[in-house]
Amino acid sequence: MKERAVVLDALLDRVRSLLQEGRAEEAAALLEDLWPGELAEIFAELEEEEQRTLLEHMDPSTSADVLEELADPEAADLARTLPEDTLTAIVDEMEPDEAADLLLDLDPDQRLRILAELEDPEEVRPLLRYPDESAGGLMTTQFLALRRRMTVAEALEAVRRLAPSADPDNIFYLYVVDRYGHLVGLVSLYDLIRARPDARLMDIMDSDVISVTSDVDREEVARIFARYDLLSLPVVDEQGRLIGIITSDDIIDVVEEEATEDIQRLGGSQPLDRPYLDTPALEVVRKRVGWLLLLFVTASLTGTVLRMFQGELSRFVELTYFIPLLIGTGGNAGSQSTATIIRALAVDEIDLGDVLEVVWHELRVGLILGAIMAGVGVIRAMTWGIPLPVAQSVATALVLIILWATTVGAILPLVAHKVGIDPAVVSGPFMSTLVDATGLFIYLQTARLILGL
Amino acid sequence: MKERAVVLDALLDRVRSLLQEGRAEEAAALLEDLWPGELAEIFAELEEEEQRTLLEHMDPSTSADVLEELADPEAADLARTLPEDTLTAIVDEMEPDEAADLLLDLDPDQRLRILAELEDPEEVRPLLRYPDESAGGLMTTQFLALRRRMTVAEALEAVRRLAPSADPDNIFYLYVVDRYGHLVGLVSLYDLIRARPDARLMDIMDSDVISVTSDVDREEVARIFARYDLLSLPVVDEQGRLIGIITSDDIIDVVEEEATEDIQRLGGSQPLDRPYLDTPALEVVRKRVGWLLLLFVTASLTGTVLRMFQGELSRFVELTYFIPLLIGTGGNAGSQSTATIIRALAVDEIDLGDVLEVVWHELRVGLILGAIMAGVGVIRAMTWGIPLPVAQSVATALVLIILWATTVGAILPLVAHKVGIDPAVVSGPFMSTLVDATGLFIYLQTARLILGL
Repeated sequence: MKERAVVLDALLDRVRSLLQEGRAEEAAALLEDLWPGELAEIFAELEEEEQRTLLEHMDPSTSADVLEELADPEAADLARTLPEDTLTAIVDEMEPDEAADLLLDLDPDQRLRILAELEDPEEVRPLLRYPDESAGGLMTTQFLALRRRMTVAEALEAVRRLAPSADPDNIFYLYVVDRYGHLVGLVSLYDLIRARPDARLMDIMDSDVISVTSDVDREEVARIFARYDLLSLPVVDEQGRLIGIITSDDIIDVVEEEATEDIQRLGGSQPLDRPYLDTPALEVVRKRVGWLLLLFVTASLTGTVLRMFQGELSRFVELTYFIPLLIGTGGNAGSQSTATIIRALAVDEIDLGDVLEVVWHELRVGLILGAIMAGVGVIRAMTWGIPLPVAQSVATALVLIILWATTVGAILPLVAHKVGIDPAVVSGPFMSTLVDATGLFIYLQTARLILGL
Repeated sequence: MKERAVVLDALLDRVRSLLQEGRAEEAAALLEDLWPGELAEIFAELEEEEQRTLLEHMDPSTSADVLEELADPEAADLARTLPEDTLTAIVDEMEPDEAADLLLDLDPDQRLRILAELEDPEEVRPLLRYPDESAGGLMTTQFLALRRRMTVAEALEAVRRLAPSADPDNIFYLYVVDRYGHLVGLVSLYDLIRARPDARLMDIMDSDVISVTSDVDREEVARIFARYDLLSLPVVDEQGRLIGIITSDDIIDVVEEEATEDIQRLGGSQPLDRPYLDTPALEVVRKRVGWLLLLFVTASLTGTVLRMFQGELSRFVELTYFIPLLIGTGGNAGSQSTATIIRALAVDEIDLGDVLEVVWHELRVGLILGAIMAGVGVIRAMTWGIPLPVAQSVATALVLIILWATTVGAILPLVAHKVGIDPAVVSGPFMSTLVDATGLFIYLQTARLILGL
């Protein structure tokens, strides 16, 4: 795909220079044939003014592709700059689920005005009820439901009668409903082609259909896709009536976005709402400063601990040399176990019922790691010519701190999960800060005992 | 899906007690109708001995489902315990790509013996050449290629003639080749159903097909799926001949596994090869100890720095109180920027060309964050009754350290990416350890200047 990148760069340059010369029509025409994903990448490189001009001059269905591919807040920013009739024409061309996401980001008056002007507002309106993070927010209402008494020939005829604009990705699996709209089975197009034309769907369908209700969280939806290797998943209401379907291309995006959020949270930042370079510096600060402040306050505990051991520290200044080393090692050991546990929770490998097994696992790991590091610590202390009792304190403290850090690093995410907080939120830097203060106490208390102070 | 979990738990208990009573046939029969994903979950809870007994008594196609769903090293461990004819029967029922993955994990002699006994070894043999991490390792050879001069009626007939065992997930899109096997287009089943029966494929196919060669890394494959919203992706050889297809259900697993690896690496551990609780403690130690040792050695630098400033520290013991606080805050600020940049690199939002823009972004963010934290730091120092010059040193050092940490935290992953190291590997704990030592130096040097020592 390397050559493609070169083509896209050249295209970007050409579009830019056409726009500068005021030849917006020509610039827009250049972009009509691109894949939506590529189009969105080119858009991401343009200034807002350029984006607006292009959206006004492109075919509404191409503009719709762009708004669908952009991150939601970016799409909304751009939409607000457009004349309302242009925006309405574009929304008309969007997939109903994407159109609903965009409308929800606009102000309520504008949302209602645009909704009133849409060709088929009823495709979009019901979707406005569902939060973006739920199965309802992921599903599309463009699907074909078949009745179970239909014959295969009738079903194929229904497929042929679908509007030519229907997205073929949404109709590989066809869902079968009873007269009340309850989901009762599924057939693939492949089944239909191979079955006898006069067979009834109820006789050839697979009635063991996996489905979710609209309120299921999108992370859980992603897990169901992964667990059952699905290409699409029907969404039903409380009564089991089919109300939409979710396709796997949306799930790949969900899995990526959820991982991004977890990684940013692990790093101690609230997740950014849009791509990094498009997030203004002040917004980045806003996402980071809360944690940094909270951790600063927690970390002040280390100062308190140090003041408690003022006497020891002034008599054995050598003790000071190992402070950052010991708490750093504790933090590192804790991070290792936290990261492993958070991920195991996220992919559903472990849950709270496994807490004892996890702790037992980490205690053994911590003990072995601690013993190894203690050996290395003694060697390091020797080469610095540190008095033996101080070296002994460092070695003992290393074992205790690593044991403590791996265990806390494992328990903390499990507890957060239990009380309903995202484990990634509390666990990264919070774990290290906690281990800093407690590790310091363990170190200095050990020293006090060993040095007989 | 909650009720389902209860059903599965009950089923697990029942299977266990049947196995204990030696009624393996009945236990195996209970599992025949489960979804492969659920079956694998039940298997994960069983002891190896129980797993082996079940695999021997289940239908080979059900056993094949289990081995396909388990993590590769676990599947291989289990396969090695089976009698060879049982294993051969199971491998015969596996998808060719999964069969190849399993065979590659067995020892070469056994691999050859099993291969020789397979019903259709030619489905599997070519796949043995491809590394697991490449497009070739992800693809299946079970696909239907159509010739471009075929009519729609002929194509539909070819679909009907496919073996009934064909996985319907693999044949939503049909790929069109020329007489030499070069990939020239694609049609969906939906297109076929709607087209005139006497139309030729070359006239209705979409000839703008996205494809990859077999050596493309699976992360890149996942990115292409996300970018183009694909459900399947054809794989071609150097000459552009179609050799396999990849379906999106495999890609959801890839995206999850890659995120797991990144998160574990960010936490400073090598990625585990199998689920956490199934990894023996010694193996976990092995994955973690390397980094912990390396970081320990790097962190010893902090001791060296402290010894450099021995004089200052003994004269102003108050300086000591802020050491963990300052280096902790530096580490946290660095983690925030590292995590953001690593993820932006992983999802292709930024690349090396953006380095100046990234640094400029982080410098501004670091300056604002530093100013805020300096304010808080002065207040904290005041409440501890710290002498003003020491408080000034702390505040100044906070600005400098945060500025330095955010910038280093952003540059480090970019540099790693440039030299071809996975940014997640070098960036998490390595970044904090580096910032610990340098931050300490910044702090004490600032104090030396301000205190006029």
